Amino acid sequence: MIIVLKPGCSDAQIQHVIDRIEELGFTPHVSRGAARTIIGVIGSDEMKLESQPLQAIDGVERVVPILKPYKLASREFNHEADSVVEVKNVRIGGGHLGMIAGPCAIESEERLMKIAAAVREAGANILRGGAFKPRTSPYSFQGLGEEGLRILRRVGDRHGMPVVTEVMDPRQVDLVNQYTDMFQIGARNMQNFDLLKEVGKCRRPVLLKRGMSATVKDLLMSAEYVMAQGNLKVVLCERGVRSFEDSTRNMMDISAVPNCKGLSHLPIIVDPSHATGRPDLIPAMSLAGIAAGADGVHIEVHDCPEEALSDGPQALLPVRYAQLMDQIRKLAELMNKSIDVAEEVAV
Amino acid sequence: MIIVLKPGCSDAQIQHVIDRIEELGFTPHVSRGAARTIIGVIGSDEMKLESQPLQAIDGVERVVPILKPYKLASREFNHEADSVVEVKNVRIGGGHLGMIAGPCAIESEERLMKIAAAVREAGANILRGGAFKPRTSPYSFQGLGEEGLRILRRVGDRHGMPVVTEVMDPRQVDLVNQYTDMFQIGARNMQNFDLLKEVGKCRRPVLLKRGMSATVKDLLMSAEYVMAQGNLKVVLCERGVRSFEDSTRNMMDISAVPNCKGLSHLPIIVDPSHATGRPDLIPAMSLAGIAAGADGVHIEVHDCPEEALSDGPQALLPVRYAQLMDQIRKLAELMNKSIDVAEEVAV
Amino acid sequence: MIIVLKPGCSDAQIQHVIDRIEELGFTPHVSRGAARTIIGVIGSDEMKLESQPLQAIDGVERVVPILKPYKLASREFNHEADSVVEVKNVRIGGGHLGMIAGPCAIESEERLMKIAAAVREAGANILRGGAFKPRTSPYSFQGLGEEGLRILRRVGDRHGMPVVTEVMDPRQVDLVNQYTDMFQIGARNMQNFDLLKEVGKCRRPVLLKRGMSATVKDLLMSAEYVMAQGNLKVVLCERGVRSFEDSTRNMMDISAVPNCKGLSHLPIIVDPSHATGRPDLIPAMSLAGIAAGADGVHIEVHDCPEEALSDGPQALLPVRYAQLMDQIRKLAELMNKSIDVAEEVAV
Amino acid sequence: MIIVLKPGCSDAQIQHVIDRIEELGFTPHVSRGAARTIIGVIGSDEMKLESQPLQAIDGVERVVPILKPYKLASREFNHEADSVVEVKNVRIGGGHLGMIAGPCAIESEERLMKIAAAVREAGANILRGGAFKPRTSPYSFQGLGEEGLRILRRVGDRHGMPVVTEVMDPRQVDLVNQYTDMFQIGARNMQNFDLLKEVGKCRRPVLLKRGMSATVKDLLMSAEYVMAQGNLKVVLCERGVRSFEDSTRNMMDISAVPNCKGLSHLPIIVDPSHATGRPDLIPAMSLAGIAAGADGVHIEVHDCPEEALSDGPQALLPVRYAQLMDQIRKLAELMNKSIDVAEEVAV
Repeated sequence: MIIVLKPGCSDAQIQHVIDRIEELGFTPHVSRGAARTIIGVIGSDEMKLESQPLQAIDGVERVVPILKPYKLASREFNHEADSVVEVKNVRIGGGHLGMIAGPCAIESEERLMKIAAAVREAGANILRGGAFKPRTSPYSFQGLGEEGLRILRRVGDRHGMPVVTEVMDPRQVDLVNQYTDMFQIGARNMQNFDLLKEVGKCRRPVLLKRGMSATVKDLLMSAEYVMAQGNLKVVLCERGVRSFEDSTRNMMDISAVPNCKGLSHLPIIVDPSHATGRPDLIPAMSLAGIAAGADGVHIEVHDCPEEALSDGPQALLPVRYAQLMDQIRKLAELMNKSIDVAEEVAV
Repeated sequence: MIIVLKPGCSDAQIQHVIDRIEELGFTPHVSRGAARTIIGVIGSDEMKLESQPLQAIDGVERVVPILKPYKLASREFNHEADSVVEVKNVRIGGGHLGMIAGPCAIESEERLMKIAAAVREAGANILRGGAFKPRTSPYSFQGLGEEGLRILRRVGDRHGMPVVTEVMDPRQVDLVNQYTDMFQIGARNMQNFDLLKEVGKCRRPVLLKRGMSATVKDLLMSAEYVMAQGNLKVVLCERGVRSFEDSTRNMMDISAVPNCKGLSHLPIIVDPSHATGRPDLIPAMSLAGIAAGADGVHIEVHDCPEEALSDGPQALLPVRYAQLMDQIRKLAELMNKSIDVAEEVAV
Repeated sequence: MIIVLKPGCSDAQIQHVIDRIEELGFTPHVSRGAARTIIGVIGSDEMKLESQPLQAIDGVERVVPILKPYKLASREFNHEADSVVEVKNVRIGGGHLGMIAGPCAIESEERLMKIAAAVREAGANILRGGAFKPRTSPYSFQGLGEEGLRILRRVGDRHGMPVVTEVMDPRQVDLVNQYTDMFQIGARNMQNFDLLKEVGKCRRPVLLKRGMSATVKDLLMSAEYVMAQGNLKVVLCERGVRSFEDSTRNMMDISAVPNCKGLSHLPIIVDPSHATGRPDLIPAMSLAGIAAGADGVHIEVHDCPEEALSDGPQALLPVRYAQLMDQIRKLAELMNKSIDVAEEVAV
Repeated sequence: MIIVLKPGCSDAQIQHVIDRIEELGFTPHVSRGAARTIIGVIGSDEMKLESQPLQAIDGVERVVPILKPYKLASREFNHEADSVVEVKNVRIGGGHLGMIAGPCAIESEERLMKIAAAVREAGANILRGGAFKPRTSPYSFQGLGEEGLRILRRVGDRHGMPVVTEVMDPRQVDLVNQYTDMFQIGARNMQNFDLLKEVGKCRRPVLLKRGMSATVKDLLMSAEYVMAQGNLKVVLCERGVRSFEDSTRNMMDISAVPNCKGLSHLPIIVDPSHATGRPDLIPAMSLAGIAAGADGVHIEVHDCPEEALSDGPQALLPVRYAQLMDQIRKLAELMNKSIDVAEEVAV
């Protein structure tokens, strides 16, 4: 940490800062220049110091943190190799791509069965579907709840696909835990810290979506919340951030993929469905994500978007998804990545 | 709602859209032009139509909603006069300013007592303090929990000030409800819909902070979530949004004040502490908020910011708060606004 | 400047950084900690060092500048008192409000005469009008050019009002200089550095609008460009920045007012017309700007917005402007600010 | 265009809107609903209508444009096939990738010769280098000017590479035109309309960079400015936009690639150097751009970044560029794209 003092600050003020740092058990390095005095405090336990409001001390202009505020999620602090997260038998990370597909919301067993068959046939290896839906309007369809979870479980088992579904409320964690293979934390809940703590207490993988205005650092801090509870199986997900561009639903920040990979050992996938909100852009953005090093792609697929109960306009048709998977397979091969196949099921 | 069809879309596609609209019980008005066909559907129950994914129909270029998606929060649908929300004996809205002040986190009874005495003396009429703190880092101070609530209640009662405190988890709503006079929903939880529903079931006023990347419409939709459960006592709060400007913590969107007032009857206050993160900017921005028509100001005050356990660097000293209140009182008078006085308490 | 080295960087790398700094004539202060080594370089000529790409040196993680990169615009480096810019006989800054009003574009002498009479009567003291218009579309009205400048001059003189008009092209500076009392640099040209240099060579005041995605620092750097050429008469203008909020044209960052005033001695005014694009929000935002300490307000006024050749939908009617000026005068009085009166003219 | 009237607007107001539209030579289609009246005006010359400030008419709530405001740049209006822009003998677009590389600024003939040799060897087919530099600070190196242009021309000719260089000032267009094969319009000048008109009068290709807060529509409107003057050889360039993310210089909006390709026939390339400002992210983002369909990549390369006079910290080393080009070639092959080879030169 570096503490920059204001121009013209008094000796007494400088001494007060020094005293405060020493009180907290650290050793200050003071450099007095013509224009400014700066005080460096360097130590591996800097994190403790950073929670101190040193910036509030009279005479302090700025406090510049040096160390990353996350540890367990950090490549630097923790481990150098890429983490591989296993969702049942499907690996994500370390050269293995997680291909998550399915409808936005679970609408009925029949429909989900049909969509699951199509995406599995195309090569998807994890089935998604929402039972609890975070809708902007209280008057929109809010999901089938537990009935939806039961359907998802049955359809996933029938097609040999592990399943992922969103959990929105700490009170639902136990229930969802009974049915799902992976928790999804949605963008709106990326900083719902009580929810993060609850899924952190489970041992199931967590798909953690980046919040709509979260920095890469914020995303890693939220992963740290889950990991600090003992659950290290976190998969990050870039799903677009809010911007001034009005022709796409969000702005997909693909640079978050190599950026996170540099900072963290955790796998990261991309979600071009929510990032763009436009089926015409999903194929190009999926390929871009893989080319940038993403460990998978999350895509919403619906066999009849105009009848979908949630987010129909952004869903891809199964036939289009299959074409895209052909392209993704070729690109994956070029990049020496493999895609685990959902396990065979005897009927 | 207006449905714009793609150039060169076929008669069969147009007819399919018409059929779909009629199936849903609406009457389409079709206008065929040289370059485009557009279909208008106008009705007061348009909201039902808007949840339909018409944009997913083949041949549809764009769907333009016309009516506002909120009803209870809307000035147009609901009622023309400004709502006044009473927090115990303190009115917010309709010409009455709510002056909320106190520390970021409740740290101890002694410290809170001291700060409360100072802000009450300066003219604050509602006491704030956090018992459950949403911290970006899992390693930061997370609040005193129920012990903090008890302290807040005692200090509020001692100084005759109603109290407001944040609730972050639906499971805490009952507990917090026993101690507080007003719930605060923080920016990170503005779209924590389960939490909104829980406080919507209570009958206590709710201070709803704008999310960091929420539009004014999103904010009103979240108010609608609370109101749809029967709790109409919502006070909106502008607290800054994320932006590219790196010299302030957030960007305070003061235009949200007159903007919300045009669209909604709900009171709206401003929070320059979180919006700027800089004590040197808080006074100017408080006055700006009042001048723009805000129904109150929320300010964090701490008697020793350098020792604060949370957000110290953005806290105002009590003496500075008192000077600011002098300026606010004069401005309020100019604008014909009054500030209820926290009630006298016999010791 | 502080140079933070990467964890595990070698002694040779550290030495190379030290050598480089010494070569450039500076003295490095090295602090070696357990987790990181940091090197401080403190000097009043740090600016020269900052143009060196030290961050590109192997082993360097981050370079943190300490000093402000502007000098002439800086309160700290240059002078402590507020600058007062005189536009003919009208003062802006140091307690004097510049009230700039007029149509977006100069359309005809008759119309401008009528609008000028109305705004002068209401209390405006500087007349604005565009002769060269930066339009997003090449097919929109581009302004009357020199004929517009002649009209503006005549109307300004007739009403005893100094005039301000936009210059967009370095080749027009001489021409515009013959007719105007103040140059306006529009938001789109805030970083048109050749244009800034040209107006910097003149001795006329410059109204410098903040770019749509410029930080406060960027704005001050652009002021520095003008000032570095010898023209110190710069008035800054906050006119809103691009954001995700879609119900206003831009987001007005009122905090830029006290923020700039802390960093710089230059006057700063606000332009709620471009910031909001909505006449219903202009009055509230004008008052907010003044309350935050702005040195004036720039408002577009048109007597028949539905016939305006440019930006009609955001123009205020003269009657509404007059009402607003009544409110502004009262607020100005409360804040001990005065408004110079445009000089009397014998007809 | 659709005109939405306010709830409760009077018959006289509706009639006034109708009269106004008819006066302008259009035919209004009026639909009266329970909650709102809407008026549709559909015609291929809608563009003329859109420059009218109908939104300023009393009783009008909102005006929704339907047609795209650009014509020459539009795929829909103009032509369906992808345009191919030839920079001397190097094609960009229609399956041909433009690989632009070189230093940020031209520093000396020797250095540029060395860098050019390296990037040509690696497979770059167009040489870049700045002679006029738009620097944020007036105290930074501003470029070598005409001497730089001469060097660029000689080095390009020596290596058989067409050259591209930035033009910032309309007064420089003739000069730069004598030396360059392609004009670059930088992000800061994307809406410098006089400059756009000047390069539009030339017949040389223009590399048009997206402004830092420009929407895709704004970018296409700026292309339209150039094209409306007769110069149709425009290549768009995504180079990142301003955002709240603070770990990269800008946020690279890769979705702009397929988005522009859907709307326009113009080629579009990506510039990961300026978009990220970080050499560690450039390779991944280059591949992502190509995978998303970009027609080329613009990369800054410097043989000794720590000595570069401009933007050194973001430059790629020649060896790293060569490795990246190997990857790009393989990806290009997978996507059936070819890369023209800079022509052989006899020495």
